[in-house]
Amino acid sequence: MATRKVLSELKEKIRGFLPNIKIKSIEFEGPNLVVYVEDPKQLLGSGDIIKKLAKDLRKRIIVRADPKSRKPPGEAEEIIKQVVPEEAKITSIFFDEENGEVIIEAEKPGIVIGKRGKTLREIIIETGWSPRVVRTPPIRSKTIEDIRNFLLSVREERKEILKKVGERIHRGTIYKDKWVRITFLGGSREVGRSCYLLQTPESKIMIDCGVNVSNLNQTPYLYVPEVTPLDSIDAVVVTHAHLDHCGLIPILYKYGYKGPIYLTQPTRDLMVLLQLDFIDVAVKEGGVTPYESQHIREALKHTITLDYGVVTDIAPDVRLTFYNAGHILGSAIAHFHIGEGLYNVAFTGDFKFERTRLFDKAETNFPRLEALVMEATYGGSEDFQPSRKEAEEKLIEVINKTVSRGGKVLIPAFAVGRSQEVMIVLEEAIREKKIPEVPVYLDGMIYEATAIHTAYPEYLNAHLRDLIFHQGVNPFISESFVRVDSASKRDEVINDKSPAVIIATSGMLNGGPVMEYFKALAPDEKNTLVFVGYQAEGTLGRRIQKGWKEVPFPSNGKREVVYVNMEVVTVDGFSGHSDRRQLINYVKSLSSKPEKVLTVHGDEGKCIELASAIYKTFRIETRAPMNLETVRLL
Amino acid sequence: MATRKVLSELKEKIRGFLPNIKIKSIEFEGPNLVVYVEDPKQLLGSGDIIKKLAKDLRKRIIVRADPKSRKPPGEAEEIIKQVVPEEAKITSIFFDEENGEVIIEAEKPGIVIGKRGKTLREIIIETGWSPRVVRTPPIRSKTIEDIRNFLLSVREERKEILKKVGERIHRGTIYKDKWVRITFLGGSREVGRSCYLLQTPESKIMIDCGVNVSNLNQTPYLYVPEVTPLDSIDAVVVTHAHLDHCGLIPILYKYGYKGPIYLTQPTRDLMVLLQLDFIDVAVKEGGVTPYESQHIREALKHTITLDYGVVTDIAPDVRLTFYNAGHILGSAIAHFHIGEGLYNVAFTGDFKFERTRLFDKAETNFPRLEALVMEATYGGSEDFQPSRKEAEEKLIEVINKTVSRGGKVLIPAFAVGRSQEVMIVLEEAIREKKIPEVPVYLDGMIYEATAIHTAYPEYLNAHLRDLIFHQGVNPFISESFVRVDSASKRDEVINDKSPAVIIATSGMLNGGPVMEYFKALAPDEKNTLVFVGYQAEGTLGRRIQKGWKEVPFPSNGKREVVYVNMEVVTVDGFSGHSDRRQLINYVKSLSSKPEKVLTVHGDEGKCIELASAIYKTFRIETRAPMNLETVRLL
Repeated sequence: MATRKVLSELKEKIRGFLPNIKIKSIEFEGPNLVVYVEDPKQLLGSGDIIKKLAKDLRKRIIVRADPKSRKPPGEAEEIIKQVVPEEAKITSIFFDEENGEVIIEAEKPGIVIGKRGKTLREIIIETGWSPRVVRTPPIRSKTIEDIRNFLLSVREERKEILKKVGERIHRGTIYKDKWVRITFLGGSREVGRSCYLLQTPESKIMIDCGVNVSNLNQTPYLYVPEVTPLDSIDAVVVTHAHLDHCGLIPILYKYGYKGPIYLTQPTRDLMVLLQLDFIDVAVKEGGVTPYESQHIREALKHTITLDYGVVTDIAPDVRLTFYNAGHILGSAIAHFHIGEGLYNVAFTGDFKFERTRLFDKAETNFPRLEALVMEATYGGSEDFQPSRKEAEEKLIEVINKTVSRGGKVLIPAFAVGRSQEVMIVLEEAIREKKIPEVPVYLDGMIYEATAIHTAYPEYLNAHLRDLIFHQGVNPFISESFVRVDSASKRDEVINDKSPAVIIATSGMLNGGPVMEYFKALAPDEKNTLVFVGYQAEGTLGRRIQKGWKEVPFPSNGKREVVYVNMEVVTVDGFSGHSDRRQLINYVKSLSSKPEKVLTVHGDEGKCIELASAIYKTFRIETRAPMNLETVRLL
Repeated sequence: MATRKVLSELKEKIRGFLPNIKIKSIEFEGPNLVVYVEDPKQLLGSGDIIKKLAKDLRKRIIVRADPKSRKPPGEAEEIIKQVVPEEAKITSIFFDEENGEVIIEAEKPGIVIGKRGKTLREIIIETGWSPRVVRTPPIRSKTIEDIRNFLLSVREERKEILKKVGERIHRGTIYKDKWVRITFLGGSREVGRSCYLLQTPESKIMIDCGVNVSNLNQTPYLYVPEVTPLDSIDAVVVTHAHLDHCGLIPILYKYGYKGPIYLTQPTRDLMVLLQLDFIDVAVKEGGVTPYESQHIREALKHTITLDYGVVTDIAPDVRLTFYNAGHILGSAIAHFHIGEGLYNVAFTGDFKFERTRLFDKAETNFPRLEALVMEATYGGSEDFQPSRKEAEEKLIEVINKTVSRGGKVLIPAFAVGRSQEVMIVLEEAIREKKIPEVPVYLDGMIYEATAIHTAYPEYLNAHLRDLIFHQGVNPFISESFVRVDSASKRDEVINDKSPAVIIATSGMLNGGPVMEYFKALAPDEKNTLVFVGYQAEGTLGRRIQKGWKEVPFPSNGKREVVYVNMEVVTVDGFSGHSDRRQLINYVKSLSSKPEKVLTVHGDEGKCIELASAIYKTFRIETRAPMNLETVRLL
């Protein structure tokens, strides 16, 4: 078997590189290589030797101590507490016997790690346990706790999964042919059900597997021969957690996929949150769900998280690197390096090429890039949006006007992304006294999604990180934010007569707690409804935006009419998508000019218009492929 | 099973249609429906009832008598000889007990058939045997004899194969999705290894599976998931017998395909001839053959022949009709009708849109046509060829000049196509005394290929058919043509001092008997070498065309130099491909204007230039796809 050959070659190289170190065994663990050594002191004491080795082998290397050299957990825990400074605020320590890992949860993970990992090295040398550090979120997130506990509970199974993944990645290459192509399985010339298949003679990589939330019958074309059987796929890559990109990931496991899912850690957590909510809502609405919670768990079991900028083997001839996409927490541009210097293609996923309150603008600096598959949501020739600054000023103006007349501001928002953007704007405005100190109520999944944001400050922009890490101001935990987590609390908010801001899901007024607020607040002209996001055709939000003054409303089984007397304002410019100008500027700003640009994730006309504009502006070959088409890159 | 349901529905309909006729059973036989009746007189006596039934069911229907009602072969043979007029010249009668068929071979099949099939009906009514009539070729063709004998020898197995094919075709449809797409597996932006896959949610149809004769390593991409496993393909369609379109058909059976091949009868015979020669030459040159003769036989076993214009079900949602392509004997444009009125796409294969000596010009009259996949061999903006008339005049002039100075004319030609075109020109010129009565020697496979032409006069153009059928002149069997079928005969021709014309393979002077003639005739300036076909880069023919006067020549293991003193003339205009003007005119002449035109089978630049010209001229969406791409039609 080719894998065995690859592994024994690696072993030989490592032993040649480290002649004086007693290596017990070497194993694949997902894309990584784990080296078990008798005495970790030898290896880790000498500093950069592992880095050199990793560079030489072009592999990520994890060093673990031989189980025999591990201190008993009680003793090890004492050592850890001595080694790690108190201000790290360790909240829990857990020993994973199976992997020889100690999982240290702390409020300040950076202090546990130490300068250049010094403290971590001390821990493994002194205890024989390999430390893994995770952040204790400043706001408790049930999702994160559940995920961490679940993954611990299946750690033996995960070990097996990772071993198999590692073996498959390292199976070696066999074809003489060199070609690269992409099959478009969904989300092309449309928004929703994003799904792409990157293929070489050796490998198949699926990028995203989304659902069309407004039409559940429209799923990616998973029955075509390019993806059947599903286990012929080597890896699935998720660019971000919105359901139109990951809503059908669990179905892959229902129908036979057994391989890994690569994503960032925040994407993993937000994805699980949104998938669980997705099937929950479907069940409540009496519909059939395309999969069950067991399939979400199965998918979770197969996740492999990667940070931005980490180059990782995911197939014999494919390396993946994630880069910041600036769209939502954890959103990534997936860059694939194919062959050894043969070809490079990146999928932007959804991206924002403008610095926002939460994120830096999308990355443009790639070592090499021959082809780019980019979103075109606002790719139409007229799709210009106001700047963030203008949008924020308008929002503040609307709030001040409403508050000054004693009204409430209702902001329908999608739980992940825009809600947090608006929260940061409001927190600053209150702190800087640009608006009065009114409570900001958060209803629906917004609070939980925000909690997940607080667990991953590394994924926020430099300004926010500075605020949180160095100035001790975490805007997400401001006292202005009040969680609404029960029907009685909601009634209280509605019946309270004083001014307030309410951010509630869903973002298009097609369900969720926002509906109750709307019904209660709509008749009173003191109140204001503020749209900060896109309202799709057919939704209640869209109708109100168009000026409907009487809207039919389902209530206890019968329909009643709600009279819309409240002010209705649309504030454009908060979108997590790049507008037309940003899309074009993004291509212009790329450090490495691609030969081919493919536009997807936009209505037919927008994909075609953007492709045409990029061709005309840069004389790059462009195409707006259709679903079910395959485009050859090389 | 869906097939059973379809069959029982058909049975019910037929019984409803023919309430008074005793039907023993109804079976699928490939795409056809065979109705076994107790007394064929009942059904066939009444004339057009079968036609009506076929139209109503949209199926081809064959009526056979119940075995019990068949007369013993001896008695039946006597009846046939009485019923069929003597001038039909029956040469053999064979009874196939398995199928209840009597195969009648005759020099004039039309007379055996009788007016509107009257005599055939009489035969089945009187004998209980279903007659199948085949032509006795006026020149004996070993290929045809071998094929007919082989097919008879495997008739039981064929019956099983056809039954399975029938069941698969009639399995019913299952998908709600409606789409049509083509994957380009070879022969796109290049000439050679033509291979296309037409796909719907229900079906996969492969069109052609050719070899790149000049680089055997370049085969169609048969390992990609769209075509694996090969038995996921419903049907293979062959447009014509040249190896770049059918040279790898046998490999499909080597690697697991078990389904049918649809082609015209002449394509079947020429294909077997050329495939056998292909592996024969490969073995002689010491190379490895991609398949063995057993795979050619296996493929042959699975052939289903169709005449031009016959509409045939080949998959649950696909109907195939062949139309004359005017390229070589039996060459066809394959027209696919998908769904019930959903979509229509035609593949031209190689085609000539000009009436030639042998064929009518390619068909342009299709009931409906949304997309056209067309060849672009001469699709470049400069690719204009002289007319046939000019070409013929030039050829005659060259021959006269050479003969008058006592020299020999050597014409290298590919065995199938151009050889026969040139033969017809020469026969007429001799008959009409435009050139003197010199012998025309035919060497290589040309004679055998010509013999196959004589077996299928229905596939020739109206003028030739009239000449053969009504004026009793068959130019192919003219006394001017002399077969060279041995080394000694060849020596005789070479050593004879009198003027002559020699047509010999291969067409590009890269092997075959033409080499010996060339070596012998080249030094003498009385002789003339006439190129009538394309000379590919890298061939000896190309070098001589460029003006090389000394060519290295392999001889008995060592290399000697041949001095080229003979006159060298290139006569353009005999091509079986449409030139640029004809390609554009073809699109213009289509009875039903397509929405999409895809150009293939041409060098990259030519495919792109033709696509661009058609777009500019007709404002039809065009594309020049790459190998491994998939284009969505609907």
